[in-house]
This record gives sequence, C-alpha cells and structure tokens, in this order.
Amino acid sequence: MASSSSLTLSQALLSRSTSHHVSNPSPPSDRLNLPAPISFSALKSTASSPSSLPTRSRRSINSRRVSVRASAAVETLEKTENTLVDKSVNTIRFLAIDAVEKANSGHPGLPMGCAPMGHILYDEIMRYNPKNPYWFNRDRFVLSAGHGCMLQYALLHLAGYDSVQEEDLKSFRQWGSKIPGHPENFETPGVEVTTGPLGQGIANAVGLALAEKHLAARFNKPDAEIVDHYTYVILGDGCQMEGIANEACSLAGHWGLGKLIAFYDDNHISIDGDTEIAFTESVDTRFEALGWHVIWVKNGNTGYDEIRAAIQEAKAVTDKPTLIKVTTTIGFGSPNKANSYSVHGSALGAKEVDATRKNLGWPYEPFHVPEDVKSHWSRHTPIGAKLEAEWNAKYAEYEKKYADEAVDFKSILSGELPSGWEKALPTYTTESAADATRNLSQQNLNALAKVLPGFVGGSADLASSNMTLLKSFGDFQKNTPEERNIRFGVREHAMGAICNGIALHSPGFIPYCATFFVFTDYMRAAMRISALSEARVIYVMTHDSIGLGEDGPTHQPIEHLASFRAMPNIYMMRPADGTETAGAYKVAVEAKKTPTVLALSRQKLPQLVGSSIEGVEKGGYILTDNSTGNKPDAILIGTGSELEIVVKAADELRKEGKTVRVVSLVCWELYLAQSDEYKESVLPKGVNAKVSLEAGSTLGWEKFVGSNGKAIGIDRFGASAPAPKIYQEYGITAEAVIAAAKAIIG
Amino acid sequence: MASSSSLTLSQALLSRSTSHHVSNPSPPSDRLNLPAPISFSALKSTASSPSSLPTRSRRSINSRRVSVRASAAVETLEKTENTLVDKSVNTIRFLAIDAVEKANSGHPGLPMGCAPMGHILYDEIMRYNPKNPYWFNRDRFVLSAGHGCMLQYALLHLAGYDSVQEEDLKSFRQWGSKIPGHPENFETPGVEVTTGPLGQGIANAVGLALAEKHLAARFNKPDAEIVDHYTYVILGDGCQMEGIANEACSLAGHWGLGKLIAFYDDNHISIDGDTEIAFTESVDTRFEALGWHVIWVKNGNTGYDEIRAAIQEAKAVTDKPTLIKVTTTIGFGSPNKANSYSVHGSALGAKEVDATRKNLGWPYEPFHVPEDVKSHWSRHTPIGAKLEAEWNAKYAEYEKKYADEAVDFKSILSGELPSGWEKALPTYTTESAADATRNLSQQNLNALAKVLPGFVGGSADLASSNMTLLKSFGDFQKNTPEERNIRFGVREHAMGAICNGIALHSPGFIPYCATFFVFTDYMRAAMRISALSEARVIYVMTHDSIGLGEDGPTHQPIEHLASFRAMPNIYMMRPADGTETAGAYKVAVEAKKTPTVLALSRQKLPQLVGSSIEGVEKGGYILTDNSTGNKPDAILIGTGSELEIVVKAADELRKEGKTVRVVSLVCWELYLAQSDEYKESVLPKGVNAKVSLEAGSTLGWEKFVGSNGKAIGIDRFGASAPAPKIYQEYGITAEAVIAAAKAIIG
Repeated sequence: MASSSSLTLSQALLSRSTSHHVSNPSPPSDRLNLPAPISFSALKSTASSPSSLPTRSRRSINSRRVSVRASAAVETLEKTENTLVDKSVNTIRFLAIDAVEKANSGHPGLPMGCAPMGHILYDEIMRYNPKNPYWFNRDRFVLSAGHGCMLQYALLHLAGYDSVQEEDLKSFRQWGSKIPGHPENFETPGVEVTTGPLGQGIANAVGLALAEKHLAARFNKPDAEIVDHYTYVILGDGCQMEGIANEACSLAGHWGLGKLIAFYDDNHISIDGDTEIAFTESVDTRFEALGWHVIWVKNGNTGYDEIRAAIQEAKAVTDKPTLIKVTTTIGFGSPNKANSYSVHGSALGAKEVDATRKNLGWPYEPFHVPEDVKSHWSRHTPIGAKLEAEWNAKYAEYEKKYADEAVDFKSILSGELPSGWEKALPTYTTESAADATRNLSQQNLNALAKVLPGFVGGSADLASSNMTLLKSFGDFQKNTPEERNIRFGVREHAMGAICNGIALHSPGFIPYCATFFVFTDYMRAAMRISALSEARVIYVMTHDSIGLGEDGPTHQPIEHLASFRAMPNIYMMRPADGTETAGAYKVAVEAKKTPTVLALSRQKLPQLVGSSIEGVEKGGYILTDNSTGNKPDAILIGTGSELEIVVKAADELRKEGKTVRVVSLVCWELYLAQSDEYKESVLPKGVNAKVSLEAGSTLGWEKFVGSNGKAIGIDRFGASAPAPKIYQEYGITAEAVIAAAKAIIG
Repeated sequence: MASSSSLTLSQALLSRSTSHHVSNPSPPSDRLNLPAPISFSALKSTASSPSSLPTRSRRSINSRRVSVRASAAVETLEKTENTLVDKSVNTIRFLAIDAVEKANSGHPGLPMGCAPMGHILYDEIMRYNPKNPYWFNRDRFVLSAGHGCMLQYALLHLAGYDSVQEEDLKSFRQWGSKIPGHPENFETPGVEVTTGPLGQGIANAVGLALAEKHLAARFNKPDAEIVDHYTYVILGDGCQMEGIANEACSLAGHWGLGKLIAFYDDNHISIDGDTEIAFTESVDTRFEALGWHVIWVKNGNTGYDEIRAAIQEAKAVTDKPTLIKVTTTIGFGSPNKANSYSVHGSALGAKEVDATRKNLGWPYEPFHVPEDVKSHWSRHTPIGAKLEAEWNAKYAEYEKKYADEAVDFKSILSGELPSGWEKALPTYTTESAADATRNLSQQNLNALAKVLPGFVGGSADLASSNMTLLKSFGDFQKNTPEERNIRFGVREHAMGAICNGIALHSPGFIPYCATFFVFTDYMRAAMRISALSEARVIYVMTHDSIGLGEDGPTHQPIEHLASFRAMPNIYMMRPADGTETAGAYKVAVEAKKTPTVLALSRQKLPQLVGSSIEGVEKGGYILTDNSTGNKPDAILIGTGSELEIVVKAADELRKEGKTVRVVSLVCWELYLAQSDEYKESVLPKGVNAKVSLEAGSTLGWEKFVGSNGKAIGIDRFGASAPAPKIYQEYGITAEAVIAAAKAIIG
C-alpha cells in the first residue's frame, strides 16, 4: 500500500548503478590482478538505517546475542590472513575451472564468483566433521544454484571429505564419478540435498532449518543444548525468479527461521544475458516484505570482511532468516568472459583458461592445491573430530539426565523405527463402517504420530479436506516450534521441497504433506526430487478422481496415477478401504529410501472382504476368487474406490455361474517387483478375460490386462456434477465391467 | 538491503490492526443491516506519500492521463444511486447463496464479500457486449479465485449474457449445466479463461494484458486506436500464496502492464482458518517490490466510492499494473458464518440462508432479481451493441486506411490462418545435414513467425539452449511491446499460464514457450489448463532424454513422455528429424483447440529415409519396410532420437535376411485416433515380434508391442556422463533391439 521510502529507492538505484559498474565487459584490471590490496568496504545493511522500527528491534537482539555467537565462532576458527585467503579462494576457482575444462562440460561462472563466500563459509564459519558427513549437529549447506556444483565439490575436497578426492575432481561429470553434473546427496557424502532444478534448494534449506528449530525446541534443555546448527544456502538469480523460492521464503519469514542464512549471488547474469531483460524487481524489498532480515554485501569478489561481518550480523538476528545479497562477478578472473552468460554454462576453453591463470597470477598445473592452502585446510579434520567428540560427550550427558527425551531423539537421529510401531496401525473388519479413505488416512496419521517421534507434517491449506490434522499436537509456528502440525498455506511446491529438506535432515524424520491429488501438478518437480534423492516423504493426496464430484475437471485427476507410475522410485498407492490404507502407511513408513504417494477418496467406501496388509505389501493380490487351478473365467482388477465396483461386478458374474477372481492392484511398483511365480499366481497369462476398472487414464493397463483384455478408465477430462452421476455417465460401472468380461469370455 | 521506512511499517501495522477488526467473529450489526448510510473513506494509497520518487513520477502521469480515461468511463456509464447499488450487490450475493444452496455444493463466501467490486466492475466500469462475448475489444475479466465462480455467473446473468439464464443458475454444478463448479471458458461464453487451480488466473490475466499491450503497440495508429481494453482480475489469499502468482506479477511489473488491474480480495480467511497461521508477509510491500502500483481499499464491503476511486487511480497509472487490495468480509451478510472458513466452501444451510435474508433485508424468493435491478442492468445490452458497433465502424476505417496492417490484425482476430502458410515450413532431404531437433525447431519457429501474424513466444531463460529466438524480431519489453520474443526469465509455471492467456485472448494468437523437457514438472498445472481450456500453446521442450548427457538425472526426463500421453487433449510429439519436426509444427499450428508438446533433442540426428509430414499427421506410420503382405518378421518402433537407432537395428536384421518394418510413433494421440484399418496396416495384430525403443519410461508401450512384444526403455533415473556412454550403459542400443527381436522371432 504505502510506497517504499525514498531511502529504499535511492539504495535501489545505487544497487543498479553498482551493478552497471560490475557489468563492464572487461573488468578493470586493478580488480583482477591479484594479489591486490583488499580494501575494506563498510558493510551496507539495514543496520545503517536507525530510523526504521525493525532495525531497532533487531538492534536490541544484537546486544543480547551477538557476543555469544561471535565468541563461539572465534572459539573454533581464527580469521586467516588475507593473502592466504586469496590463495585459497583462487584454488577453489581453479579447481572448478580445471574440472569443467577436463570434462569439457559444466558451469565455471558461479564457482569463480562465489569462491570468496564459499571459502569463508567452509573455512571460517561452518561446523562440520569431514570424516563423518552425517554427524548430526553439523551446519548444513545447500547450493540452491546447483549448476555451480564445482564450488561445493572444491570445498568438500579442501575440507577433507573422503567423497571428493583429486581423482574424483578429474572425473567430474563422467560415468561412475562420485561428483555428478549437479549435486546429488545420494552420490556425494557431504552434499545434503539434490539440487539443480532451480528454487528447490532454497526450499529444501527452509525444511532443514525448520527441522533444526523443531528439534531444538523439542529436545534442548537449559543445561544441554544438543541441537544447535545453522543452515546456509547459496542461491542465484534463477532461484530467485522461481515461484517456489518465494513460497518457501514466505514461510521461512512467517516461521522466523533465524538460523537460516541465505547468500544471494547477485551477479546480474542468467543464461539469456543480463537479468535486466526479465528480472528487474527489487529482491531486497521483496524479502523484507516476506519478513527477512536483508543485508547487502557490495563487493562479493574480494570483500572478505564484508562477507564476514554480514554473517555475524545475520547470526545476531535470531528471529528472522537473513538474506545476504552478495554482488559478485560471474566468472570473476576471466579477462574475456567474466560478467557474461558465456561463462555460465560452458568450459572456458584452453585459451581463456590460460588467460585467467595469468590474470589471477596462478602459476600452477591443473588441479593443483598449493601446499600452504592444503596445510591450512588440513586443520578441519582434527577440528571436525573435536566438534563431534564434544557433541558426543554433551549428548552422553543428555542421555543420562533426560532418558525419556533421548529415546525419541535417538530414533530421529538414527532412523531406527521404535520396535512394535506397526501395532499402532488401526485395524478394520468388514463390519467397520464405510468411510472415505481420506478419513481412514487420518486415523493412520494420528496413530503413527503417537509412536513415531519423527512424524511431522501438514497440508497446503486443506487440512480439513485432506484430513491431516494431528489431534494430539499443536501447530508448528514461530513461537511453538516444538509442535508437529505444519501449516504450509497454499504453497504446494514449497511444501514438497520443504518436506524433502526435513526428510534429509535426519533419517528418523518422516514428513507427510497433503493437497488434492490433482494439485500434485503444482509440486511435481519437488516430488521428483523426493524420488531421485531417496527422501521418504509421504504424499497424502485426497480427492483422487471424478469421485470428488461438483468441483469439476480442474479438480479431478485423470492422468495423475499414470504419471506417477511412470516416475522411478516412488510408490503410487491407491488403497481401497481401511485395511489397505493401513497397509499403504506401513509400506510408506518402512520405505526408507522411497517416497510414497497415497491417492485417497473423498467419497465413502466399504470395508472389503479379502483386503489385507500383506496383500498391499505385495502391491497386487487376490482379494476374492471362486475358481480353482489358477484358471478363472475372468479376472477383474481394480484399485481404490473402484475396487468395490469390481467386487459387485464379480458377484453378478458369479451369480451367473462364472468363476471370477478379483485382484486389487494397489501399487504397481511393488507388484512388478514380485517374483514371476507370484505374478503368474495372481494374473496368469493363460486367462484372456482380464478387465480392469479405474477412474483414471487407461495408460499402462495393457501390461496387466494383456492384448485380449480390456482396460476401462477415463481418457478425457472430468465434469462438474454429483459424483454418482459422473461415474454413471463416464461408464465407470459394474455393468461396464460385466459387459466387457462377457464380451471376452464369449 | 535497506529496511522499509517506518512509514511503511506503521502502515503495515495499521493494516494488521484493521484486519483484526474485520476478523471479529460476529461483525457489528451496523455494518450488516442494510440499507446503511455509505460513508466515504478517503482512498488510502501511495498517492498520499508525496516524498517518494515513484509516487511523484506517477503523479505526473496522472495529470496527463487521468482526465482522458475518466471522461471515457463517464461517456458510457453513469454512476448509479447507492440504494440501487446496494440492491444490485445483494442480488449478486443472493444469486450466489441460492445457487450454492440448491446445488448443496459450492463456495458462497467469496461472492458475498466481492459482490460490491463485482457490481462496480460489470455495471460501471467494464466495456463488453453481452450478446457477443467474443467482441474483440471487450475488457477482459478473470476470476483467479475461481471457486467463487457464482460471483461471475451472477454478473454474467445480470449483464445479459445468454450463457447464464435463470435455469442455468438453478442447475449450478449439475450434469450438463452451462455453469460448472469452477469457471470454464469452453463451457460458459463470457468466461475468458479456466480457473480454479489457484494462481493460474492472475497469470492468465498477465497474458491477456500482454496480448493487449502487444496488439495496441503493433496495430494502433495515432488516428485509429483499435486496440484499447483493460484486464481486470479478482484474486484471493490463496492465489497470493502460490508461487506462480509471484512469477507472473514480477513479469507484469517488469513489462509495465498498465492496463492490468488486479483486485486482491483481502478477507484474511483461507480454508484452514485465519491467514495468520501461514500468511503473514506484507503483500503490499511485495507488490511494490515487483514494480506494481498498490492501493488499499479498506472497506470493500460497502465502500463503493473507495472502490470507484481506486479504479480511476489505477487507470491513471499507465506504466505499472495496479494491485487494489480490497479488505472484505468473507460471507458478508451471514450473521453466524461471515468471516469464518465455514462460509468458504459449503452451502450456508437453510437456517443460515434465512438468517442472512433477514440480516440483509432481502424479502425475495430464491433466484429472484428485483425488477428495478433487472431494469437497471438491461441497459448493458444496448450499450454493448453500441460499443461494438462503434468499434466496428472504427475498424472499418482502419481497414481502409491501413490495409496491410489490417490483414495481419484480422488474422489474429479471426484465427484464420493465412492461405499457403504451410509452404513456409522448411523442407529437408536425406542429404540435409544431421542436426539436433532443437535446431530444426528453430528453423520452423523462424519460418512460421514470418507468415503467422499471431506467432509470439519465448523461453524461460534458456533461449540459447532451447533455440527459440525469432531472429527477425526484437524483444517484447516495456518500451518495445510490438516485438515478439518474450523473455520469461526462469519462471516456467507463469510462462505456461501467460501463454494460456495469450492464446485465449484472440483466436489467431499462437504462443509458444520453451524450457528443458524435464522442467515441464514446474509448469504442469498450467499445461493441464492449456489442454482443458483448449488453448493452442506450443510447448517447445528440448533436451528431451538422457541424450542431454552430463547435466545428469535432475535434468534428464524419464517419465515425462508417458505423463503427457496420459493427459487428455494434448499432443505429445517426439519428432525424429527435420521432416518430422516440420510435420509436428504443422500439426501444432492447425490444432486450434489442442496444445502440443514437442520433445526435442539436444544431440544431432540424421535426416531419415521415409520420414514424412503426412506420416506425422497420422501420429504413427511406416518409415521403411522390406516385407510384403503386412507380415514382416519384425516391427521395430521408435520415436525421436531413438528412431535412427531402430533404423540401424532394422538394417542389421535385414542383412541377416529378415523382413523388417520400421515404424515411427511420433504422436500416440494422433495415431490412436486413426481408423482400425489404418492401425492394422501399420501395426498388424498378427506380428508377434514388435520391439519398441525409447529413451524414457516403458509405461504404456504394451499397447503397441502387445503381450508378446518387447518395450525397451528406461524405468530408472538417468546419470551424469557423456550421452553416448549413458545410452550404452542403459542399453538403449541397436544391439538390444536386435537381440529382443531375435528372441521373439526365435
């Protein structure tokens, strides 16, 4: 409503003019010929604006907290001489340049520009143990601009992680390499999450920071602060443009994630050229609107002290996440390609690599790490061991004093499920009342939250429709972070990515999230990352077909079951009743490296004869059968809400004297992983009359019904009307199944 | 960087406290008992902040333009007495209440709260012809909060659109009704775009406004302003939370879409309750950061003059889009449910309907439109006819004076393709150089842009990778809106939805947009709306498989072909060479009601013997065959980049004396729409040895290879390495095809 103050505007103009300076095609040599005298630029931040209220309130936080955090930092690591820092920074740059050059593929620009902040983070700020990348209380780092992965690989290499040896750097982007083309948590220990698709990383980082804040509030004691780490992110212009980043950062501000510190690599270049052509908003003002503390480091190329001071300021603000906008030059050091898109995503080429070596005064062979740099970084191995040992000792104390809390904490840390947890799953009989699987799902969620300490989650503003509220817990909010119901707002995409961050924070976290099944379209990129990065997220997707009725085709999924069946490493579950819903949750919880999508009904469904958890675990199984010798006249196959219709069709056919088998194909992925013998026992090749019924796309059903069978489904969009009417009009009926079966049986 | 000024902050605090007032569970009766004296609240906007530079610059625009627009508004419609406005507003409220009540399904809350702005827009501001909903120069209205569709239906009904008669209102959300559960352009003339999935509508509106700005710049003459209309939107809290809305609004600000006026229904309620639980950012400040003009109407329930003044102010700002934040009470008038989530998405119930009738002093039967209201609105039929007739006369003049321009303009207006356009498609022979289909695509794009006046588009910051730049045109930008290359930035989701808006603006627009195929995951919700709403958008999706190589699994599509084959009404095309690429574009351009996805290769592909445009138009066809009698030993099927591998395999098998047919299955949807005879002539049932090869999920291929055939593909994630190595390791090879065929032939 009110305009920004003129102060804000003039600073924005200053930003623009500075960036224009940075945009010179050939940067002035005095900025590039190193070693150069490092001039200290006074840190430019909101701190310099004493008139504004948020600054004042932050100031008061400063005075309370800054000394504590600052001394903690000094405790572990001392500030290094700038000449050595220069050398280390250039080592990072050239490891990136050389690896991309050898691969003749990759993105050298970002590592060259972000090397200073990378160096300061990994060498001066972050607490980690390179010999145990999974140490619980490590600071987390996320490279949201994942294409710049050589920055992270170079840092992991210098820091002493075993995952990135010199030979790995030399095999960057090659078959079998441990350092792939974008950071992958499942390939490279030390990489926390899988990034590359823009905006995912910053949202993952929000999840990591949420996890820390939750655990700290839930488990820390005044005399035992066992959870205490930061989440650092580097994101670029590309991430900033993506909607998911705005969604996630709005939540981070809402939740007051004070230990989330994001570096925005403000280099004014994206693939299509200067960001002027498509990205002229004021990012700073937007983040302030989102409730972040914002700092601007004007000289990210050589302003080490500016970067250091910004981090200290960020740490001092404990009630807000901080965005440190760091103005850098993409491809810094390359005399002919710096500050242009040509350095973004291609090798520099031998000639320009030579020119850059000369320009930055780098006399070394490719992949060389100078001895003093190597020696300097070598301290991280003992420091890391010490940090972990200290924490272990602290935790041993904790375990003694707070034995009850330690049980839950340990389960989240280790990922070991409490023994007998599965007994908590609700049980159903055919006498149990008919109910929607979304309601049955809620019974499971509430039961599981009581026995699984890492069970947390929520909905994208549809809790009362998705039926996802945990009744024994309150809301995770800024001032109640120990609670377990997460309110994501209408932000499906960020929701998925935040859950990925939670899942990958500690192995015992089991995040779930919910929306209408059709709106998986909004979050599919995050769901794919769940599958790829082996993040056990449970996607509770209700209103799973035309059965939702009047909301109409915009809300009725058609192609969604097929679309997830095609995606690798994700279980697409469509349970038919209470027992199958419990079975689906059992599978989902036990699938430590696989996310699960649960497609659940809005409409009531009866509890079916023959449904079983064991059956669900096999993905497909015989529900009922009145045949012998594995040769029924017909096999009728259904999933979810259509299984009861298939059962009715079978009853009719049996009345007419036919032998009929009913098969529930609740999860294709699990079924296809069974032995050939099992599959032949369920869907024998010799039976022609196989008919499937599912209120969704028929794509893929031929695999089960065979060339002679019939797949009944919906290959057009839905309609707005009461559900029974649509089922009738769309031919998703027992009559249609009976007719199809008879036509084949003859 | 700099903090907001204290002014901004204090206003934000004021906003919060006001909203708390609004949030009272039982609103004070003096606001609800109507007719009430309407107190004029001074319009609160940035205009009251004379110190800030943007305001000053806007002021100068005001003085230049405001009189022109204001008089134009007065010209057509006069301000109505407030008592009649009250009555009209309540008519809208009760039509919504009654329709939802009769359907026992729907969302009464938004129409009850937004009726005043709806009334003012449709009765006082907007220019349209109810008897010709497709009149070119109409103002466009988009209900981004589509669940509130009864607002729009009530307005269309009052305004005299034939599409919404009284009997339609009575059949809301029923089978066969013309007014479905969410607004659907293909069901209800007068509805511009299909909304419901949140955030889509505001992005569509950006596309509509872009289209207007483009056409105005391209075709208007100093003496003939034939393009001159506004785009109005109502969006709610839900839309505001969605990332796509931020993406689209960032672009709208960047492009300076001054004729885009968005009403933000700030009612503080979403499905899960008060927005306090998940949405506490400053929306106003965010929009200012995005380059919008922001106005706050504090009393959206009864402050008609505030709303009117805000619209006039918005129109006066011609270089920025305007967000009018209108604070309303959801379910206004319902004594027990207003201002709560319970009125959002359910019928009020008979008792509360009665209470609301009493509270608002509404003595009428359900669905009754009082005579004076009816009579008042009846003027829109003659006014609309007059507006169109005036425009037609103006256009007739234009056509005479500017015959050349009129040819292009008319083509965009009518959707009629210029005769012979298809001759512009590039042609290829087997002698043409091997090339990536992304490059061949660029040749098509550039050729088509020359002959198709409505051909516009661009990439999400990958123009140089997707190869989508139109070389004969410049960039569509704020100051060069007549140009045709659109720079979307890294905003895939908004890109798709903006293209939907462009496509649905005028039938001759053919927007295309581009990113890597894997990132369709980011924009899938918009692509689904293309398909559902019959928007001819061409999705140019390059880097379509593991063939992209080193970028690795985050960038390599696997399940994407299958996922679009499962989606209704969208052509999933995977051309194999230049001829097939031209054929794919021919189909895409001619498919007036169907969007097309083109999956294109990064890697070079040879021009194949036997490829043809006619074949592509059938979706699947015989490329080569050395058999007779429709009984080859083997049929090898491929698509896109794998077709050349299949050809190699066929050559080998033929050398060994086998009769082999090679089939290109470039578009399943088109193939499946062919006659049974044609399909039998291509893939005869009698041939067992059918082998398919595609570098993607095998899901669905059984339909073509049959139970005895073999589908070779990739059912796991990709890897980071040079492409040929991955093809080898993943078994996407001629050897694998040969082995599979031989295993079946025996």
